[in-house]
Amino acid sequence: MQNFDLYTPARILFGKGEEKRIGELLKPHASKVLLHYGSGSIKKSGLYDTVTASLKESGISFAELGGVKPNPRLSLVHEGIALCKKENVDLILAVGGGSTIDSAKAIAMGVYYDGDIWEVYEQGKPVEKALPVATVLTIPAAGSESSGDSVITNEEKQLKFGYGSPLIRPLLSVMDPELFFTLPKNQLANGVADMMSHVFERYFTNTTHTDLTDGLCEVTLKTLMKNAPIALDDPQNYDAWAELGFSGTVAHNGLVGMGREQDWACHGMEHELSAIYDVAHGAGLAVLTPGWMQYVYKDNINMFVQFAVNVMGVEGSYRDPDAIVQEGIARLRTFFKRMGLPGTLAELGIGEDRLEEMAKKATGAAFGEESPLGGFKKLYWQDVLAIYKLVK
Amino acid sequence: MQNFDLYTPARILFGKGEEKRIGELLKPHASKVLLHYGSGSIKKSGLYDTVTASLKESGISFAELGGVKPNPRLSLVHEGIALCKKENVDLILAVGGGSTIDSAKAIAMGVYYDGDIWEVYEQGKPVEKALPVATVLTIPAAGSESSGDSVITNEEKQLKFGYGSPLIRPLLSVMDPELFFTLPKNQLANGVADMMSHVFERYFTNTTHTDLTDGLCEVTLKTLMKNAPIALDDPQNYDAWAELGFSGTVAHNGLVGMGREQDWACHGMEHELSAIYDVAHGAGLAVLTPGWMQYVYKDNINMFVQFAVNVMGVEGSYRDPDAIVQEGIARLRTFFKRMGLPGTLAELGIGEDRLEEMAKKATGAAFGEESPLGGFKKLYWQDVLAIYKLVK
Repeated sequence: MQNFDLYTPARILFGKGEEKRIGELLKPHASKVLLHYGSGSIKKSGLYDTVTASLKESGISFAELGGVKPNPRLSLVHEGIALCKKENVDLILAVGGGSTIDSAKAIAMGVYYDGDIWEVYEQGKPVEKALPVATVLTIPAAGSESSGDSVITNEEKQLKFGYGSPLIRPLLSVMDPELFFTLPKNQLANGVADMMSHVFERYFTNTTHTDLTDGLCEVTLKTLMKNAPIALDDPQNYDAWAELGFSGTVAHNGLVGMGREQDWACHGMEHELSAIYDVAHGAGLAVLTPGWMQYVYKDNINMFVQFAVNVMGVEGSYRDPDAIVQEGIARLRTFFKRMGLPGTLAELGIGEDRLEEMAKKATGAAFGEESPLGGFKKLYWQDVLAIYKLVK
Repeated sequence: MQNFDLYTPARILFGKGEEKRIGELLKPHASKVLLHYGSGSIKKSGLYDTVTASLKESGISFAELGGVKPNPRLSLVHEGIALCKKENVDLILAVGGGSTIDSAKAIAMGVYYDGDIWEVYEQGKPVEKALPVATVLTIPAAGSESSGDSVITNEEKQLKFGYGSPLIRPLLSVMDPELFFTLPKNQLANGVADMMSHVFERYFTNTTHTDLTDGLCEVTLKTLMKNAPIALDDPQNYDAWAELGFSGTVAHNGLVGMGREQDWACHGMEHELSAIYDVAHGAGLAVLTPGWMQYVYKDNINMFVQFAVNVMGVEGSYRDPDAIVQEGIARLRTFFKRMGLPGTLAELGIGEDRLEEMAKKATGAAFGEESPLGGFKKLYWQDVLAIYKLVK
């Protein structure tokens, strides 16, 4: 086990009706908030009314900024920063999914950052201060409701970069599984692929003596894979959505990766797909992950035998570990297919013409400074290209 | 799954040498601390020198108060409160195990409490403010390094009561497994029994649809049971101690019990043993837990079948669930015996003369207001007495 620093301060208010308490929960922390949201589906669902009524009841005033899109845009972040400064906002309340929360985090840092906040994402410049962020989660997927991460897309440059800091871990997040009942099936499926990937990126490691976190990862993956098809077939199944939501937070608040060298190659490879083709992050991950597994597993086959046996339930002759691993990967592909997720880049509408460009961007080779992806196996641009081609 | 409020703010700095950073870690939060510790073993081990050197290097001054005993005493808490007020301390640094940390938490509340802090423990009076507490953990056991709980013994009254509040969750805790290498074997064994009990108290429930936390509990228990005998036989095994330490935090920071009705009867029954006979908490739990299981399992046998199969590895004919459960309980007794833990009250030096008195104190019947123990099965004083007799 490696040394680690575990810090999971985001308070999670979980369960039916908790969103009605948002005003009371924020009252000790804010007198004016920026209400940040996406397409306006929260107005149709009534959530907007619930949240604003609760704020008013607690005497909290608010400015608002909707219009966050999937792969949240830098331009809206700029708009939010200006609005917060003008309105003297002291907390940002994101009501939505990962994109809305990530956008809120960028705004929260931008209010105090002296310069264009994009520098922080592109160049990793340090941030000293940020407004507090709270969330009401409407899509279990990104884990942004408890994580200290934010990913923003610069639409002009076709670049997507992430930034992490303890300063942007949300103060608190409300998670009511009933809010998930109306999600389209593809958003459920994309979300599950994203949550599973958050565990995979931490699970596949060469670090040894990681009994506890091995188990925590495996349990989280199995809980997701058990409950996702239930929610897919029965969208009003509270218990299944509750397991998915809770698992999504545990998958990405940091705990299950403590003391382990982590990987994160699939996320790096996927960001290129989203940046250029604007595909859903989870759908991109569902395509790339089995290909990545196929490409890297021989570097530490025992890790993948453990995955196949403990997560995918493969049994058989351990004298043929390749066969165990292949069956594990095949079952993962079958699961993604069962969820309606794509299995190839072609299904995402991505052709072969820009694969090399994306591979070079993913590793930084395109910018003259190659920094290979992956903690489990180092991937240079040629490796990334090979993986893209494996799943074309 | 029930609604829940997850709040785990304690930052955990984990690994070799982390205690050398304590001054740097506390610097943003304190200029004068109370250094609180136990028997003085930290002076022999050199930890006292390491910690005080680090404080000095960071320009943090300190007052100190040693002498915390297992089942920490109210009298020393009173002394600590007076000292903090006199010295204008702004943070309490507990260097020790659960007793030292619990004592520190009581002092932290007492500094601001208007009245005798014992009222808070005995009558559950609310606390509005507390000094921050940080810890350097020397015994993985109580989980107090991340929990919001404190248990104090009033030695005059022979009473032991606990109190819980988010205000006393430590700000940060340092956990270096190397500090555990010199622990006596009985302290390791007691600690493991305590950590397992923290999971058991949350695991055994009648709440359904708790896939994720079922799994988190099972993984934590299995990690403890795998690594405890390794550390027992090889006290310098870093990896085994690392798993035990990390598991102890996960067992008691709240996460694994979220959304579940919890039990806590064994803790309630054990506190009477410790209060009157001053036995080690973990040793008392090791005696009581299998007896409790035997007494309650038929109320929800499926929960205990799951325990026997998923935790204790029992296989066989599910058409005879009683046999599965009995084998599970027998394996738990075997494990405790392997760790050198007692199996009966007699082995703890506890006779039969005060069992009824303890049973009546445990449920409050002795004070005229009986409040049965246990969320899994309600236990009145007659039930508690029956369990004490089962393990006499």
